Amino acid sequence: MRWWGWGDPAAPPALPAHALGFLRENVGVAEQPRPPVALEHVSVAPSSLGESLLAKLRAIVGSDGVSDTHEQRVLHAAGKGYPDLVRLRAGEPEGAPDAVLYPADHEQVRALLELCESSSIAVVPFGGGTSVVGGVEPLRGEHGGVVSLDMARMGGLLKLDGESRTVTVQAGMRAPALERILAAEGLTLGHFPQSYEYVSLGGCAATRSAGQASTGYGAIEKMVLGMRLAAPRAEIMLPALPATAAGPSLRQLLVGSEGTLGVISELALRVRPAPAARIYEGLFFEDLAAGVQALEALSREHALPDVARLSDEHETRMSLALAGSGGVKGRLGRAYLGARGYGEGCLAIFGFEGGEEEVASRRSRALELARACGGLRVGRSPGQAWLHGRFAGPYLRDDLLTHGVMVETLETATQFSSLLSLREGVARAIAAALEARGTPGLVMCHVSHVYETGASLYFTLIARQNEDDLLGQWRKVKEAAVRAILDGGGTITHHHAVGRDHAPWMEREVGAGGLRALRALKAELDPAGIMNPGKLLGAAGLSRPPG
Amino acid sequence: MRWWGWGDPAAPPALPAHALGFLRENVGVAEQPRPPVALEHVSVAPSSLGESLLAKLRAIVGSDGVSDTHEQRVLHAAGKGYPDLVRLRAGEPEGAPDAVLYPADHEQVRALLELCESSSIAVVPFGGGTSVVGGVEPLRGEHGGVVSLDMARMGGLLKLDGESRTVTVQAGMRAPALERILAAEGLTLGHFPQSYEYVSLGGCAATRSAGQASTGYGAIEKMVLGMRLAAPRAEIMLPALPATAAGPSLRQLLVGSEGTLGVISELALRVRPAPAARIYEGLFFEDLAAGVQALEALSREHALPDVARLSDEHETRMSLALAGSGGVKGRLGRAYLGARGYGEGCLAIFGFEGGEEEVASRRSRALELARACGGLRVGRSPGQAWLHGRFAGPYLRDDLLTHGVMVETLETATQFSSLLSLREGVARAIAAALEARGTPGLVMCHVSHVYETGASLYFTLIARQNEDDLLGQWRKVKEAAVRAILDGGGTITHHHAVGRDHAPWMEREVGAGGLRALRALKAELDPAGIMNPGKLLGAAGLSRPPG
Repeated sequence: MRWWGWGDPAAPPALPAHALGFLRENVGVAEQPRPPVALEHVSVAPSSLGESLLAKLRAIVGSDGVSDTHEQRVLHAAGKGYPDLVRLRAGEPEGAPDAVLYPADHEQVRALLELCESSSIAVVPFGGGTSVVGGVEPLRGEHGGVVSLDMARMGGLLKLDGESRTVTVQAGMRAPALERILAAEGLTLGHFPQSYEYVSLGGCAATRSAGQASTGYGAIEKMVLGMRLAAPRAEIMLPALPATAAGPSLRQLLVGSEGTLGVISELALRVRPAPAARIYEGLFFEDLAAGVQALEALSREHALPDVARLSDEHETRMSLALAGSGGVKGRLGRAYLGARGYGEGCLAIFGFEGGEEEVASRRSRALELARACGGLRVGRSPGQAWLHGRFAGPYLRDDLLTHGVMVETLETATQFSSLLSLREGVARAIAAALEARGTPGLVMCHVSHVYETGASLYFTLIARQNEDDLLGQWRKVKEAAVRAILDGGGTITHHHAVGRDHAPWMEREVGAGGLRALRALKAELDPAGIMNPGKLLGAAGLSRPPG
Repeated sequence: MRWWGWGDPAAPPALPAHALGFLRENVGVAEQPRPPVALEHVSVAPSSLGESLLAKLRAIVGSDGVSDTHEQRVLHAAGKGYPDLVRLRAGEPEGAPDAVLYPADHEQVRALLELCESSSIAVVPFGGGTSVVGGVEPLRGEHGGVVSLDMARMGGLLKLDGESRTVTVQAGMRAPALERILAAEGLTLGHFPQSYEYVSLGGCAATRSAGQASTGYGAIEKMVLGMRLAAPRAEIMLPALPATAAGPSLRQLLVGSEGTLGVISELALRVRPAPAARIYEGLFFEDLAAGVQALEALSREHALPDVARLSDEHETRMSLALAGSGGVKGRLGRAYLGARGYGEGCLAIFGFEGGEEEVASRRSRALELARACGGLRVGRSPGQAWLHGRFAGPYLRDDLLTHGVMVETLETATQFSSLLSLREGVARAIAAALEARGTPGLVMCHVSHVYETGASLYFTLIARQNEDDLLGQWRKVKEAAVRAILDGGGTITHHHAVGRDHAPWMEREVGAGGLRALRALKAELDPAGIMNPGKLLGAAGLSRPPG
């Protein structure tokens, strides 16, 4: 992974020339490209770990299990959020871990946590490192040092129970590695977040991740049947079970714990038969309300596709404008839709996966329901184009940053009855915040991840960067968006998690009592507060409430 | 509700004469019926609450909101588990609450908890009072007194959001009352535990209840979108949301908390369109393994009925023997099945609910898959008979007890790969324990509540009572069953909850670390340990671990 951005360091630029032209026209771009600094110019303070501690760490994980090279420290200095990339590209991360540790199994994790606790060293669990909310920032809190605990060596398959369609893995296993193993058995996990190419499964569980096909396959919380947690002062082992009524759900307590309670070391996950058929296609709706009405009807009738994604008018216009090959093609497509009265309409992608016969029957029913809400089929090419580009967003972002363009995404979920008003409120708040900075931008949204009672909203904003205050610009926009989300009845995050960026709003999300409950839990498992300080549990990231 | 058993006090005996004959022949019955003692002969110690505390309680809930009559105290002296009924019928409950409190809203609950905390009075939340695991026993722990907090006055509808198909209610609302309200709007919750006629919705949430149609509608944990908790030292308000990634799930922490963290005062629940069509029917499988194979296939193909219930050979034989009208009728049915080679087979009930067209297409697919595993359709009468008698079990139990017959049910869940061996291990352990007491009995089992990776097992055991040691007999059998469950990879409870009876096994279920985490939570919300002492959190029911 590129230390300053996304993907293979050797990957070519992903932004097509006509897209750059579109951006120049609509938001403005920098006059000169602004590439990241060279790796050797990234400024990082010397590691603060003494030789005696390093020796103890090496005694646990072996000498090749501890790294404090400049490159490794920079690679673990941040996640992949907009502020992370801004800082990294400028060569100025806020900090870097004093060392990167690579445990090989649960026992090594336990031993590392005990040593770090007794040495007052903060520990930041690191899976794919793809957090976009500051979840892997190497904050040390009140501790003397901070290490990144990279799960890369814990990628083993522990058990595959075909009859129960359950796989048990070490938590550092990457999603694509698991899919390769499962494919050989005719199975799939079906978890495809945009960060799929890099995420670890433990990271997905720790951040309560939802994949793009979660409407069909469910978010990770539905997939986790059992898990093992190594905490500084405890160990929790929950075997794979299909269901239990034995008290509060500890499984659902560890899912979403974001490394603040301990390290998820092992996971038992539900898998499914690999789909024999996959059909992805496009539909057009007259406006967003009509599209939402269709999603509500599909949800009511349990007829939702596995991927159901509905762009608002702005996102639709943008994707038609940017579509090179594939998609509802450029001017031609727009003319066709315009002639049928869908000129300013909304594009939806419906994706169906499963057995041949099952897909055929589910699809025919879904299309019938969509048609009743004015849904117009526009063929498979938009679906194929979306599938083809489903992991492309983070690559494009790097190019946009090079051209002086800010791009940020944020997401929420709410009940159906608030969905349209929430979209409008958040979009307006973002637009106003951008204008107030003198950088009016494009604000787009899509509905996806559809549930029985509501759905998620995913916003993308694009604007020219405030060159002299990149982070201030971002912060203003982010704050305006989150306030509008909370005021409009949404959750602060549907699938990006809390991390550092959303932590100040956790109290509004779950209330003072809810936050106290979570902090009490942390105080029991991690009384010294070494686990991922500054994330999840409130603005100050304290393990205990002040006072 | 009868203070000594189930249902309307005026209801006639439910046990048909031929069933009594069957029992006499197979397990033995008492020579003389043994009815419960009269209410006035139930022995209950005088209430220990002083006049000054009673005055303070009345100041919060009004003078009609506090009761310490003999009848009310006896009605709240126990739940409806086998040991409860044995004690009540003998007129010897272990204890009774010093008073029964009837708050009218969340604020009154909060005020009561504060007063009880400062007065060192234990509080036992009481919904329908139907716990079969000792969940509402009025244990006082180390406190000076104990009150039952009856939610009967908190039965109001707070909000019905039709577009989001979400209803918000006070937690004391009974399930049938909600269904009546929803029916008028063409909606249903779809939560039908065997105790349906009496349960409160808050009680269902607090005990992580699963209804008989949970394969289709989901257990209560899937229905709860938001909730409000009043705890002695905190208040938690979680709004209705379809999904969120904001940290560990506090919703799933409060679901299953069994009154040990606080009182669930309000609930937002997902509802569904009321089914236009309902088809319940019977299928026969050659043996249990074939039936399980069919359920696995249906689960794999997402083709499960809403109710999928598969009896083992023993339960099948018993229901054929006991079927009066309806069912696969007596000798005739057995002859028919015998002639087709299903003489010792297993009866399954499949129930489909939904839109006409949807039910037709799902049913045809499900029956096709079942047929491939040898499933033989035996018509709708077994399905109708089951539907008709679905809430009858507890009524029958009262009659059995009158005739000196012990009947107990217990349940678990496990992954498919362990399902058959777990059934065998548990059935054998129960049978051996009964034989060791000199009361060999009938042990039956059915598979129900089917998931993607496994299913629940529900055991019923019937034996002649050990007249001189009713509770000792029960305890031996229960212990043998739970040990076999844990040894065989099952959970200690699929839907009966933990209560007092399963509390000693919680540590084996979630581990010492898991139990410590839950106790830390309790210590934060209820530091004095007044909430439902002796339940859920370990054998001693301590709010903090010993030592």
